[in-house]
Amino acid sequence: MDLNSLRSPLAFLQSRLPEIPHRDILKSEEAWWKNEGVAISDAIDRAGTPWLRMFDRLGKRVDEILYPLEYQTILKRGYRAGVVWRALEEKSLIPTYLLMYAISYYDPGICCPYTVSLGTAVPLAKYGSAELQARFLPQLLRKDDSLWQGATWMTEIKGGSDLGAAVETIARPAGDRWLLTGEKYFTSNAGAELAVVAARPEGIAPGVRGLTLFLVPRYREDGALNYFVRRLKDKIATRSVPTGEVELKESEGYLLGSAESGIYLILEVLNLSRVANSVVSVAVAQRAMADALSYAQQRAAFGKPILNHPLLRHQFETRLNALRSAFALAWESVQLLNDVWMERAPYSDRYHLFRLVAHLAKYWTAEFAVDTAKWAMEVHGGLGVLAEYGVERWQREAMILAIWEGTSHRQILDGLEVMERKRAHELLFRRLAEIAPSKELQEMESEVEQHLKLPTEERETLAELLFRRLAIFTAETLARKSK
Amino acid sequence: MDLNSLRSPLAFLQSRLPEIPHRDILKSEEAWWKNEGVAISDAIDRAGTPWLRMFDRLGKRVDEILYPLEYQTILKRGYRAGVVWRALEEKSLIPTYLLMYAISYYDPGICCPYTVSLGTAVPLAKYGSAELQARFLPQLLRKDDSLWQGATWMTEIKGGSDLGAAVETIARPAGDRWLLTGEKYFTSNAGAELAVVAARPEGIAPGVRGLTLFLVPRYREDGALNYFVRRLKDKIATRSVPTGEVELKESEGYLLGSAESGIYLILEVLNLSRVANSVVSVAVAQRAMADALSYAQQRAAFGKPILNHPLLRHQFETRLNALRSAFALAWESVQLLNDVWMERAPYSDRYHLFRLVAHLAKYWTAEFAVDTAKWAMEVHGGLGVLAEYGVERWQREAMILAIWEGTSHRQILDGLEVMERKRAHELLFRRLAEIAPSKELQEMESEVEQHLKLPTEERETLAELLFRRLAIFTAETLARKSK
Amino acid sequence: MDLNSLRSPLAFLQSRLPEIPHRDILKSEEAWWKNEGVAISDAIDRAGTPWLRMFDRLGKRVDEILYPLEYQTILKRGYRAGVVWRALEEKSLIPTYLLMYAISYYDPGICCPYTVSLGTAVPLAKYGSAELQARFLPQLLRKDDSLWQGATWMTEIKGGSDLGAAVETIARPAGDRWLLTGEKYFTSNAGAELAVVAARPEGIAPGVRGLTLFLVPRYREDGALNYFVRRLKDKIATRSVPTGEVELKESEGYLLGSAESGIYLILEVLNLSRVANSVVSVAVAQRAMADALSYAQQRAAFGKPILNHPLLRHQFETRLNALRSAFALAWESVQLLNDVWMERAPYSDRYHLFRLVAHLAKYWTAEFAVDTAKWAMEVHGGLGVLAEYGVERWQREAMILAIWEGTSHRQILDGLEVMERKRAHELLFRRLAEIAPSKELQEMESEVEQHLKLPTEERETLAELLFRRLAIFTAETLARKSK
Amino acid sequence: MDLNSLRSPLAFLQSRLPEIPHRDILKSEEAWWKNEGVAISDAIDRAGTPWLRMFDRLGKRVDEILYPLEYQTILKRGYRAGVVWRALEEKSLIPTYLLMYAISYYDPGICCPYTVSLGTAVPLAKYGSAELQARFLPQLLRKDDSLWQGATWMTEIKGGSDLGAAVETIARPAGDRWLLTGEKYFTSNAGAELAVVAARPEGIAPGVRGLTLFLVPRYREDGALNYFVRRLKDKIATRSVPTGEVELKESEGYLLGSAESGIYLILEVLNLSRVANSVVSVAVAQRAMADALSYAQQRAAFGKPILNHPLLRHQFETRLNALRSAFALAWESVQLLNDVWMERAPYSDRYHLFRLVAHLAKYWTAEFAVDTAKWAMEVHGGLGVLAEYGVERWQREAMILAIWEGTSHRQILDGLEVMERKRAHELLFRRLAEIAPSKELQEMESEVEQHLKLPTEERETLAELLFRRLAIFTAETLARKSK
Repeated sequence: MDLNSLRSPLAFLQSRLPEIPHRDILKSEEAWWKNEGVAISDAIDRAGTPWLRMFDRLGKRVDEILYPLEYQTILKRGYRAGVVWRALEEKSLIPTYLLMYAISYYDPGICCPYTVSLGTAVPLAKYGSAELQARFLPQLLRKDDSLWQGATWMTEIKGGSDLGAAVETIARPAGDRWLLTGEKYFTSNAGAELAVVAARPEGIAPGVRGLTLFLVPRYREDGALNYFVRRLKDKIATRSVPTGEVELKESEGYLLGSAESGIYLILEVLNLSRVANSVVSVAVAQRAMADALSYAQQRAAFGKPILNHPLLRHQFETRLNALRSAFALAWESVQLLNDVWMERAPYSDRYHLFRLVAHLAKYWTAEFAVDTAKWAMEVHGGLGVLAEYGVERWQREAMILAIWEGTSHRQILDGLEVMERKRAHELLFRRLAEIAPSKELQEMESEVEQHLKLPTEERETLAELLFRRLAIFTAETLARKSK
Repeated sequence: MDLNSLRSPLAFLQSRLPEIPHRDILKSEEAWWKNEGVAISDAIDRAGTPWLRMFDRLGKRVDEILYPLEYQTILKRGYRAGVVWRALEEKSLIPTYLLMYAISYYDPGICCPYTVSLGTAVPLAKYGSAELQARFLPQLLRKDDSLWQGATWMTEIKGGSDLGAAVETIARPAGDRWLLTGEKYFTSNAGAELAVVAARPEGIAPGVRGLTLFLVPRYREDGALNYFVRRLKDKIATRSVPTGEVELKESEGYLLGSAESGIYLILEVLNLSRVANSVVSVAVAQRAMADALSYAQQRAAFGKPILNHPLLRHQFETRLNALRSAFALAWESVQLLNDVWMERAPYSDRYHLFRLVAHLAKYWTAEFAVDTAKWAMEVHGGLGVLAEYGVERWQREAMILAIWEGTSHRQILDGLEVMERKRAHELLFRRLAEIAPSKELQEMESEVEQHLKLPTEERETLAELLFRRLAIFTAETLARKSK
Repeated sequence: MDLNSLRSPLAFLQSRLPEIPHRDILKSEEAWWKNEGVAISDAIDRAGTPWLRMFDRLGKRVDEILYPLEYQTILKRGYRAGVVWRALEEKSLIPTYLLMYAISYYDPGICCPYTVSLGTAVPLAKYGSAELQARFLPQLLRKDDSLWQGATWMTEIKGGSDLGAAVETIARPAGDRWLLTGEKYFTSNAGAELAVVAARPEGIAPGVRGLTLFLVPRYREDGALNYFVRRLKDKIATRSVPTGEVELKESEGYLLGSAESGIYLILEVLNLSRVANSVVSVAVAQRAMADALSYAQQRAAFGKPILNHPLLRHQFETRLNALRSAFALAWESVQLLNDVWMERAPYSDRYHLFRLVAHLAKYWTAEFAVDTAKWAMEVHGGLGVLAEYGVERWQREAMILAIWEGTSHRQILDGLEVMERKRAHELLFRRLAEIAPSKELQEMESEVEQHLKLPTEERETLAELLFRRLAIFTAETLARKSK
Repeated sequence: MDLNSLRSPLAFLQSRLPEIPHRDILKSEEAWWKNEGVAISDAIDRAGTPWLRMFDRLGKRVDEILYPLEYQTILKRGYRAGVVWRALEEKSLIPTYLLMYAISYYDPGICCPYTVSLGTAVPLAKYGSAELQARFLPQLLRKDDSLWQGATWMTEIKGGSDLGAAVETIARPAGDRWLLTGEKYFTSNAGAELAVVAARPEGIAPGVRGLTLFLVPRYREDGALNYFVRRLKDKIATRSVPTGEVELKESEGYLLGSAESGIYLILEVLNLSRVANSVVSVAVAQRAMADALSYAQQRAAFGKPILNHPLLRHQFETRLNALRSAFALAWESVQLLNDVWMERAPYSDRYHLFRLVAHLAKYWTAEFAVDTAKWAMEVHGGLGVLAEYGVERWQREAMILAIWEGTSHRQILDGLEVMERKRAHELLFRRLAEIAPSKELQEMESEVEQHLKLPTEERETLAELLFRRLAIFTAETLARKSK
């Protein structure tokens, strides 16, 4: 089995996909990362985490986020290459997720700002009034370094799963805009020029139906700060990205869609980031394997490179297969999303199929990334736990991927729901029928059907094992096709 | 199922073991840790890693290891409680490993110095000349804070698995002592007053048979430094413990045992630390679960504590069962070691049985600890990846446990060898026969036998799955008994 | 000249003062610091700065300040020894400032919490209603570790000099208490159980006359947080002390004195801390000299210890004289304050004399400390700029002393004012007449009188040189007496 | 008085010098620094200090110095602009020191590598054999980023002042080269491709006359490491520059000049760096003043910007005069060095005049920089001691300048010697005669002559005051001319 495709994200993509749009761009990005980006990313992970200058010397609140300049170098590169603007200009998410795969092999954290910027541009393009679009969209799609970044701020201090209960930010109408007051507790890309923010219009009934999405710029029309960064968080990974807490104090906001449809908009934003999370997870796993490979080829024990020891070689080979399966699952979610990302509620069957696949992919790719990162550390022996050699970083990065955009619990339960309520598994099995051996497929179908007949509580209690098996089955089946 | 035993290491031990020697001591240690130790340990993990002052102001080489004083408070406590001296005074390892379990629930790193101090005292007591014992043993067994610490330094820069090839440190005889010259690359407890060091007497043939164990004090007889700490390493965990690199430059050493028997002594030292690693792994897993439990009971979503959601509750329950199994396996290795630790080569069958169980336990408990720590982070949601709340620490600690004292590869291959060459699996199955359902036992036996008949390379290639199944089978069987 | 008195704060005090109350306590404190405290203080300066946990795991705002436990060990020691309670129980500030001298030789930062705790207890004892005293004073004067700490928060973001303009915190009456809303920008000892806070009762005219002093507990009567710590600051020194920013949001406060008298109370609090600043400055200078001395005695160049080189020896001797002068000036401010600290407006002449001496002392001792710390670094040569050897710390600590409680500009201008308006220089010259040679005294008097006749702007323009000369003249004259 | 020249190094240079060679280059460098360099330099000072990777993953000693890539950006810029190559190509040091002034206004640390690279190229060009020059000089003078850096390593652990006693590194002849063995304790620019190293040929008598200078490349001819970096130091400033300790182990070295003349070569290297130190000191002082100015103009108290308060304005004005004087003194040392840098022993009178002026300039400019940095912190009030606002950095940088290249003690004593032995003061007074008022000049001359007649010990004891007065007198006199 050829392990060499592990060494380059583009080589791996080429081994998996029949065609790669904008292949030349991926190639030049990869070359740049090898020569310069890797050293920058290492240095930032080690000591370059951003910090917050809350006041200037004169006591004016400025909430300036200070980064190493090099972070800007990395960051702006991806934007210029089109990680956001291509999606809207080319009306396809494929170039975006290809770029994310290639970039996150070198720096997974950087895809967080890209994802939330995309998650700002898309609902604006889809649901914003013509006036709002004219006012804000061009900045998000600029092709030079004057571009604006986006951000998607939903979670409050009571948690991110049960948004209906947790979102307490209130929006009051004020002429052509709204004034938002509340606190957001996990705000990725704090300091972004434009954010989409979940809030609750004053007087609307509690619960998930009252959620509404607003566009909130960093600065008010009069030039003053429109939101306040209370602090940045000390995360174990994605250390270049400023994740913080934001205070909204009568902050100017602009309605996206209508007040009643907010939850749909929020979930559509989440679609974009869950798929991104899956793509990045696979890239992190590939990177960890590549580091392990280069080490195992050079490090000798008992008279030969450790790669040539049968147990370790076997692990490399089975894990490469698993990587291919994980990629096939993630990429299926990309392709399905690319079909449905412009849909609005009520949604098509294809949208429900996408949702199921996206849950399976988010869940399984992250599990695989964490496990692979652990294994890569072990391949390095004692060096694996030293900060000096950087391999431990992939485990930290993978753990963030396992938790953000919903932990495994969330994916399992939401995946279960879309099977119960939309029969999405039937759509999935239909999709897999052309590839999977029929006996295996029937067994899997029957297992799912049995499970769905269980009493409610038991159905949830035992859901993990079923979901895991379904994810692996789907991944392996899809991988079979792509070969 | 009663999850409350998770909250206290003593409570858990009591639920698993028929009797606990020195229960009062464990109880008072636990009380101290709750009140004071936890805060100290947190602070040290965050910012209190030791550093090396190589020269004093006047340019004299001193290699002073600087710690927060609080680390000394923690450290000395365990020594006073008897983590080392009881083993030799009471001629039993049980009190030692009970103390290690209780302490490492609060600070797993601290058990590293305890283990290597034990690993210094035991070979000295077992193989040191009467004169050597009189000269050095009392200091290691002191019951007050003037006690000396030990250290066990084998690994050199070429690696820790293939010691026969990697150890290049040379020892030259010089009257009643030897002079050692070489470099040790992973020296836990750098700065210890006394170390056992693997070296190769000058002129002896290469390979594992030439390895010899020496006792090397920190200071020469004339008061000068006897070894040099080149630097301390930046590890992801056990951050209170100074792990470094040591240079031996004609360092005074004293022979332990005889030159030909060195590899046996080294492996006997490793026995002590592998068993410690297993015990500590289980304690770390318990601690991570306890943190997850306290959070899940208090954190609400969808109108109730998340612990009451069926999927999460089910995970707690199955994981508690797995914790009990892992403990049963670890404790079996403790008890077997307690039977054989004074044996010398040639060894008894019981010793070989111990070796197999120790490999199974080292392997499986570490796997379990890593997985449990990951899960505990997920239970905390977004908080799980913040340095602020400390739960991410258990994953770092667990990863060190998975790698130190031999990664899974090492355990699997060495376990395979003791089955092939000593038929240790037969001893194991005899041991389990009284507990395991006979059908399951037969299947397991047959699977092992089949595997051992495979051609050499295939036997190694496919060993992981077999070893994993055997570990779980053994653990679950033993747990059955202890209930 | 005997340089040995430099080595111990008590030895130096004994060489300067005819009697030392509670000498035994100072002696035992000094012994403890030598044996344990120094190592703790070094470790905290290096890596033990406190941090803020704003929310607990469940999202409840807690504003917990996390320190190394060792900091508590140091901190509580001084309180138990009586740095606060003795002042009120023994009705004398002498024991307090003696303790501060002895302690700040080892850790100058720790005297910051002591000073602000004193600055809380004194106005409460002096101006608090009987009910308020009964409710809060005992906690501040406890002799065990359950004691409460105080804090004195005046400065807001617009600055600390022009309080009349800068204080924008508003107090609204609410029954038996007031509700305070505003932000404090430099809050030493953030997290204190009780603070005195400058605010402006709603509706009162702007300017310094509207300032009012309130007592603000950490927790409201209902147990909720009463003030909020927005963040801690990253200072170059006093790194163990949490200095932060505090938000008051309808915080419960209790009036001290009357609304019209606030500025007097504030200045009386400042008296306590300016004198403390002077005492600590001299101690820091002594410490830096002691470190330089021990180095210079041991380090050799050109065949002899560098201390024996004439230029360096001469510097030690002249600097020891200057240290004695600086101490004499600082101690004069202590003794004068001890006479007047219970006065209320309108004040006696002695109070005005105190004010002038306190400005001279604050100014000159800090200048001397900074210069001495720089010189001590130079004595260490290249080692002086390494973090490894700690001597650079004294410069950082001294710089804080030069800036806190008013920079030199403030001392000079306020000193000028008390001469212009209260003729305080005449009182000073009367005091010095018995010691100073009459010719020198007359010249100094004449110089001051000439200066005070200058046009206003020129008087201020040229004030620095005059003030410097007057400080040195006063210090040297007082030192003459104390020999 | 026009304070605006403080805001730009080029503006200040233009106000002081009749003509500026390569003015356009200085202008474009300044523009780049304002736009990009300042942010890079701040980030590196805060968190970008280099670190040492001693071994690669495979255990090969590599001694790789890891920096933020941005540091390379800054560093290479100055080399390309000609800070080294112009000196040798244009046969003038003026462009070099102008560039250093302009650059060190923004980042004083970066001039350390420039200075030591110059200090490598110059002795090679002056004393290296034709073969040695052909082999190594072109690399040091490259105009692109492939350039080699130099380093000048003299100091050993016994100290930097008394090199005759402290240098214990031994050189043994080995064919066309020498093998050096020893340890260097303060090695600026550790990791440089080429270093000049002081050593003592084996068998040569002790003392300063046996010192010899060698050229030592980073890699041996066979490609192996030729010297070893034991560790990097944790300095308070110049934090971007790797200063470390170097071990020479039979390192290949090439003789510069002859064995007997080593001390002359060493002192000639020191000439270059002392003058650099003076130039950089003035630039740091200007920068600190510029930061204070921008703050004082914007910060208000008592109803107006604090700059408009008479005392502060007066301080700005007198300090600007002092800055001009300090610059005049530093620049005199530049011009004199430019006349004599190609001289060899025995030296001309002009060389001795240079030496006296260089000692005065090194001493006085550093004193001024430290004092000015302190004052700038005070102007910022409480903000001055916060890491957040960066002004405290200039004090750290200035302290390094006061200590490196010889502390004030060294300058004073060496200055005294050149007056005693070479009557350099007479040359100085002759130089100043055309500018200074004759009465002041006569008084100064007489004071010096009196001093030189004192008994030896007293002459040294009292030298500081004399030297200080002479430095200020010289500086102010020279400044008079330049207006």
